[in-house]
Amino acid sequence: WEGEFFPGIPKIKYEGPNSKNHLAFKYYNAEEMILGKKMKDWFRFSVAFWHTFRGTGADPFGAPTKYWPWEDGTNSLAMAKRRMRANFEFIDKLGVDFWCFHDRDIAPDGKTLEETNKNLDEVVALAKELQGSKIHPLWGTSQLFHHPRYMHGAATRYATICSYITLSVTHYLGGENYVFWGGREGYQTLLNTDMEKELDHMARFLQAAVDFKKKIGFNGTLLIEPKPQEPTKHQYDWDAATAANFLRKYGLIDEFKLNIECNHATLSGHSCHHELETARINGLLGNIDANTGDPQTGWDTDQFMTDVAEATMVMLSVIKNGGLAPGGFNFDAKLRRESTDVEDLFIAHIGGMDTMARGLRNAAKLIEDGSLAELVKKRYQSFDSEVGTAIEAGKADFEYLEKKAIEWGEPKVLSGKQELAEMIFQSAL
Amino acid sequence: WEGEFFPGIPKIKYEGPNSKNHLAFKYYNAEEMILGKKMKDWFRFSVAFWHTFRGTGADPFGAPTKYWPWEDGTNSLAMAKRRMRANFEFIDKLGVDFWCFHDRDIAPDGKTLEETNKNLDEVVALAKELQGSKIHPLWGTSQLFHHPRYMHGAATRYATICSYITLSVTHYLGGENYVFWGGREGYQTLLNTDMEKELDHMARFLQAAVDFKKKIGFNGTLLIEPKPQEPTKHQYDWDAATAANFLRKYGLIDEFKLNIECNHATLSGHSCHHELETARINGLLGNIDANTGDPQTGWDTDQFMTDVAEATMVMLSVIKNGGLAPGGFNFDAKLRRESTDVEDLFIAHIGGMDTMARGLRNAAKLIEDGSLAELVKKRYQSFDSEVGTAIEAGKADFEYLEKKAIEWGEPKVLSGKQELAEMIFQSAL
Amino acid sequence: WEGEFFPGIPKIKYEGPNSKNHLAFKYYNAEEMILGKKMKDWFRFSVAFWHTFRGTGADPFGAPTKYWPWEDGTNSLAMAKRRMRANFEFIDKLGVDFWCFHDRDIAPDGKTLEETNKNLDEVVALAKELQGSKIHPLWGTSQLFHHPRYMHGAATRYATICSYITLSVTHYLGGENYVFWGGREGYQTLLNTDMEKELDHMARFLQAAVDFKKKIGFNGTLLIEPKPQEPTKHQYDWDAATAANFLRKYGLIDEFKLNIECNHATLSGHSCHHELETARINGLLGNIDANTGDPQTGWDTDQFMTDVAEATMVMLSVIKNGGLAPGGFNFDAKLRRESTDVEDLFIAHIGGMDTMARGLRNAAKLIEDGSLAELVKKRYQSFDSEVGTAIEAGKADFEYLEKKAIEWGEPKVLSGKQELAEMIFQSAL
Amino acid sequence: WEGEFFPGIPKIKYEGPNSKNHLAFKYYNAEEMILGKKMKDWFRFSVAFWHTFRGTGADPFGAPTKYWPWEDGTNSLAMAKRRMRANFEFIDKLGVDFWCFHDRDIAPDGKTLEETNKNLDEVVALAKELQGSKIHPLWGTSQLFHHPRYMHGAATRYATICSYITLSVTHYLGGENYVFWGGREGYQTLLNTDMEKELDHMARFLQAAVDFKKKIGFNGTLLIEPKPQEPTKHQYDWDAATAANFLRKYGLIDEFKLNIECNHATLSGHSCHHELETARINGLLGNIDANTGDPQTGWDTDQFMTDVAEATMVMLSVIKNGGLAPGGFNFDAKLRRESTDVEDLFIAHIGGMDTMARGLRNAAKLIEDGSLAELVKKRYQSFDSEVGTAIEAGKADFEYLEKKAIEWGEPKVLSGKQELAEMIFQSAL
Repeated sequence: WEGEFFPGIPKIKYEGPNSKNHLAFKYYNAEEMILGKKMKDWFRFSVAFWHTFRGTGADPFGAPTKYWPWEDGTNSLAMAKRRMRANFEFIDKLGVDFWCFHDRDIAPDGKTLEETNKNLDEVVALAKELQGSKIHPLWGTSQLFHHPRYMHGAATRYATICSYITLSVTHYLGGENYVFWGGREGYQTLLNTDMEKELDHMARFLQAAVDFKKKIGFNGTLLIEPKPQEPTKHQYDWDAATAANFLRKYGLIDEFKLNIECNHATLSGHSCHHELETARINGLLGNIDANTGDPQTGWDTDQFMTDVAEATMVMLSVIKNGGLAPGGFNFDAKLRRESTDVEDLFIAHIGGMDTMARGLRNAAKLIEDGSLAELVKKRYQSFDSEVGTAIEAGKADFEYLEKKAIEWGEPKVLSGKQELAEMIFQSAL
Repeated sequence: WEGEFFPGIPKIKYEGPNSKNHLAFKYYNAEEMILGKKMKDWFRFSVAFWHTFRGTGADPFGAPTKYWPWEDGTNSLAMAKRRMRANFEFIDKLGVDFWCFHDRDIAPDGKTLEETNKNLDEVVALAKELQGSKIHPLWGTSQLFHHPRYMHGAATRYATICSYITLSVTHYLGGENYVFWGGREGYQTLLNTDMEKELDHMARFLQAAVDFKKKIGFNGTLLIEPKPQEPTKHQYDWDAATAANFLRKYGLIDEFKLNIECNHATLSGHSCHHELETARINGLLGNIDANTGDPQTGWDTDQFMTDVAEATMVMLSVIKNGGLAPGGFNFDAKLRRESTDVEDLFIAHIGGMDTMARGLRNAAKLIEDGSLAELVKKRYQSFDSEVGTAIEAGKADFEYLEKKAIEWGEPKVLSGKQELAEMIFQSAL
Repeated sequence: WEGEFFPGIPKIKYEGPNSKNHLAFKYYNAEEMILGKKMKDWFRFSVAFWHTFRGTGADPFGAPTKYWPWEDGTNSLAMAKRRMRANFEFIDKLGVDFWCFHDRDIAPDGKTLEETNKNLDEVVALAKELQGSKIHPLWGTSQLFHHPRYMHGAATRYATICSYITLSVTHYLGGENYVFWGGREGYQTLLNTDMEKELDHMARFLQAAVDFKKKIGFNGTLLIEPKPQEPTKHQYDWDAATAANFLRKYGLIDEFKLNIECNHATLSGHSCHHELETARINGLLGNIDANTGDPQTGWDTDQFMTDVAEATMVMLSVIKNGGLAPGGFNFDAKLRRESTDVEDLFIAHIGGMDTMARGLRNAAKLIEDGSLAELVKKRYQSFDSEVGTAIEAGKADFEYLEKKAIEWGEPKVLSGKQELAEMIFQSAL
Repeated sequence: WEGEFFPGIPKIKYEGPNSKNHLAFKYYNAEEMILGKKMKDWFRFSVAFWHTFRGTGADPFGAPTKYWPWEDGTNSLAMAKRRMRANFEFIDKLGVDFWCFHDRDIAPDGKTLEETNKNLDEVVALAKELQGSKIHPLWGTSQLFHHPRYMHGAATRYATICSYITLSVTHYLGGENYVFWGGREGYQTLLNTDMEKELDHMARFLQAAVDFKKKIGFNGTLLIEPKPQEPTKHQYDWDAATAANFLRKYGLIDEFKLNIECNHATLSGHSCHHELETARINGLLGNIDANTGDPQTGWDTDQFMTDVAEATMVMLSVIKNGGLAPGGFNFDAKLRRESTDVEDLFIAHIGGMDTMARGLRNAAKLIEDGSLAELVKKRYQSFDSEVGTAIEAGKADFEYLEKKAIEWGEPKVLSGKQELAEMIFQSAL
């Protein structure tokens, strides 16, 4: 394969909201300053190698549908290298600075572990070269869910080797984070499962990873990615609060942060905004997998987010968090099975980036306007009273509180002003 | 109201599985020994005053439907006392030793706080007398969700007075536990909410309750009851893991246990068995609200549990926990709106008790048979290997694990035997 | 009560998108022409008397929270009349031309049926007078779900009297439609239910209503409102397709249309857009209950719609349907329980109307732009081929189709362009 | 491959409920008479070739896990024939009389349509021979969802050839039914979809199938299998009522019946019992896909049914329907991914058959006991009154009903006795 992978597609430029060009940004303007920071620095967008270059369009009922012109139908090492070159042309044309990878997706398995590792080394060397000085992995991860050896769970001997190597590789490529995504850490039925034993082992495995990270001098953040279920009936890292409880129980709370995925949030019965806020107030908001699900389906659809209202709520959390760096926004999102044109890959990413950019602009507008914050502040004004202050200082015991309550009588209960809050919010969109 | 409240209804007796008598137990045999303990001691069944005596059959679209003959249509103090006498006749005829109560349901609100408290005192004095030496509250709780003053959340000044008093009353009546059920601790929209501030306050409130409990010498267990939502869009005590994270974050983990409700479990996307196991392995399984939901509805239906398979799983967890005492099984369950005969109150409780009794018998059968435990043990045999032992001891670092993995090569992956586990389980039913 | 009910609130005016006035329209501009019709004629907005004037803020766990200044705490006839005057002042200030009512909500029950009917007559007479020449009911309905007499279902003797009277009243007031909302037509458990018998009776009842309507010369549309469940576990008019099947089975398909409610749509597992399209292509789209649910809750939250993307999809269907007249948009939506200021009533309706107006503007923009329609047309181009035409004409039998398929070989499968469709859609928002 | 495929596994026999033999029936006793019919004739159990012999254990996140000893890793014609022999040994050892097949699963695709058809012919000839005189297909179907050519929907030219051939093959093999399972008949987004046009085409396709069936003299039943979604966001044959509406709208109601799958029922928000009853009272209950889902997951898990209570409800419907013949129970169910032993195939089917057999015994017990039917009869006693009779005869107009209602006054509303119904039901289990 010589020359361009995406011959008809130019470098994607910002053309503003009136552009009708499908291959241009209408809202994302990388260098524009918003709330004191460049747009690109708020987002730190990343392309997910596995979806964009290894997504086949297969689903539980259907065969692959994508036949990208650069694919030769094999899973050879040569093909892996060609695909990696396509990846960097894509990243360059899209104008982002980060990518994310699974070890097993960037290089083919060999017949032996040695060969597998050798394959990975060759592809990684090429990636290093193609990265140049500007591009790095936002994060790497070891893909520990596809092979049958992981079917009962992956925090096992074999997983260790993979994590050992992938952590090293991520470090070598200048990756800024490393994700542990279970996938098989959970159960299909409690009847054959010892949940306590499995969680104990998982904690030991993660502790060993922390030790190893320090040993090799990797300063990136380790991330856990909550997901409630699928492929298992129950995944141990169900949601942000469940993952936080696990980290606290096993003394790992200071060593990990969370990678929140919007589609996983809704599968667990929460809004994406809720999961981000839960992670944030537990000090755990490390990265966002920028995708969305379908509110009417009960599985992970991994769609590119196109809902501007949701993107605005996401950005309200991100701004409160002071940004995400060293984390960012990874497009853990895939084309629909029926989208089979090469240009669809660009259209989808542009749509996702424009949506997030609209979210950022709207969130900034809301913050600059100030009425929403004012409404919230008013709602909690009693917290700043004498009693509120005493409670916050831990000085209010039951006797004191009872005395005050009797003294003051029935409290006046103010309107929650939800419809007004929604009106203010919608007006910014 | 003179004489019996339930004139046609005898003391409910055990008549065995062939009985066709709707007013007899077919499976629950209080004094029978199962796995070394009397059935009644495994369960410690409790009648929930609020559902059984204050449930009206009203729903969001409909008016009350229950017109119990002893009700006079008022919420007077006299009526409250009469109702309390009905409660104890019911408990006596059903043959249980515990009851649970909300403060606001056993006594009417007065015009002033003083009068409210006086009303409560009078009813409590009567309850104390009617309890005699055998009957006690399994737990008491302060009902902090009905009045508009709690609409934004109840861990407030006013709530304190109520909790102050109800904790004291529970202590006075010999209650063995005390429950904090939020109801309004959560949010309708994040747009007008400061979740962090609210959780901080809630933690302070619970800490004050712990201090107060110690001061008055109440040795019962304090319980939090997870529920994901309803009436709020999101409740802060979403599920067992979320509640555990909260308790750990605020240093309250040793002071509270959880009251797991099966219907709340399924609303949060978990099986009841899962929530019980999560509570158990976090050392938090304190009490069970024995009810069930409808798998096709998205709200709390609070039905009496009639699913024997589910009851068996519940009892497997309870047995692993060594029982629940000082907790027990509270029937936080209500008649359907359309069930308007007095005898329906008995039929529902008998059905619930028989179902749990079948669950206990089946669980005991499974444990005595041993094949299910054997199947699980085999599944984890690799955990007892040299490497497994090293991992459990925290001695297995990444280098050691990688070395071992290479040494041993591809692991043999055994069948999970889920269908066999299900066959063994079903055969016990 | 003398003078204004809403003294501080002016007639709501259109001030355009830059207005910060909470009591002004930013998008809804009644007289503006969109696609050849005035905005007000596209919508035919209606205020729902029951939510706006009888909604108390009670929920299954909580007491009423609304204490509107004009309420005197009674359910007297005088209060009913005062409330009706408030209703028309509200309608006038909001600037809409329609209202919807339940019989039981506008007038109090009397001690006898005669008194009940007399009460209704008096209030209706006042409403007739207050309506003047401009305002009419969009629809009326008989509230057949609240009283215990309906607990097993309402298509009964008693229901008939109410429907008899309410249909007459709706006719008298110049109502343009009449709705049958079941509520209790369904089951809690199949174990005690004869679904076939109940459906047969329901069909007879509706047939009798059709006959009666013709007899009294009421030319309005009869509407059925699909809802999947709540308060029952299952409602017989589950969704649009289920209601259509019922109407077809019993020969009622030409006599009824559907009143689609967005919150009911999502509770049944469909998008609102889906239900509208299903109703439309079955020739049944008669009216819209303009509200929305919470994607994370499993019950009817009846919120005012504030999602502009959803509103745009709604309006795409409405435009395809050539509008809704004689139907319209009824705000079957209520303030949140915690919204207790009088102005919240206006804010909520303004938000709802502005959202729908944005939806209409966006839909018009999409239609005028034409790219989305073009994309769809291309997707179905093979339907216009020789074979497609033969199929549509019913002339393509299996032999013909097989012959053609072999002749043509493997078909070329085009990209579904979903991401592009979403990009075009989002760009219009 | 010579000799037995399942060498250690004997013909499965009935050993009664006390047997501990995993490879024996504890409840299914083929020749036993229940309610005047042999057990085997109530069920007409069928093995699903695709799950049992082509199920690989792959899931959206994981590779195949099943390596049956008779598989050689190819999809050759020789392998297809060997697999077919394994199928008939399995059927023989399990002791059932029916199997179901997809065309594409029993024979490999060739390079051309001709070769594909030739492959199918060879395998079908072998199947015919192996069937002998006792075994037949319960049904056949054309697999129209896997190949990319079907990604936008399958009721297309190509589908016709497949259906043409598979219908002929099913006829040739003595199949008693033929199923149309869409899979791709639905949409991913309404934005790029013309639902009306697609439904029109689907109806034309089905009409052509009816014509073809008659032409070739196939007297079996044509079946549509409702499923709400997955792989599509929305499938057009959503549930029983939706499919019935479609059949009525296009005049196909007398030509088709429904194949109800329990897992599909729960995915559409209904109980399996509900879907069976809906099909039954619409005259459409033709066949059952005997499986079950997980109440906590939002996708099709296709598990073997092991819930005895659910099986009892299923059998109550089947008995009311007078049985299912010429339909039956097809095990459209698969081993869990982690179940990798050959014997697991037998254990799963035995568990499924025993569960259904318990359901039949329980349902028969309930019917013979009669108390549940009596309870239902009492509930509808008013339907047999003068007015009820008039309504059923279509003679009750509004005037008559109003007159009667006034005459009789407020109706007495009886208890629905749900808890008693549940107690009676549970007592039979």
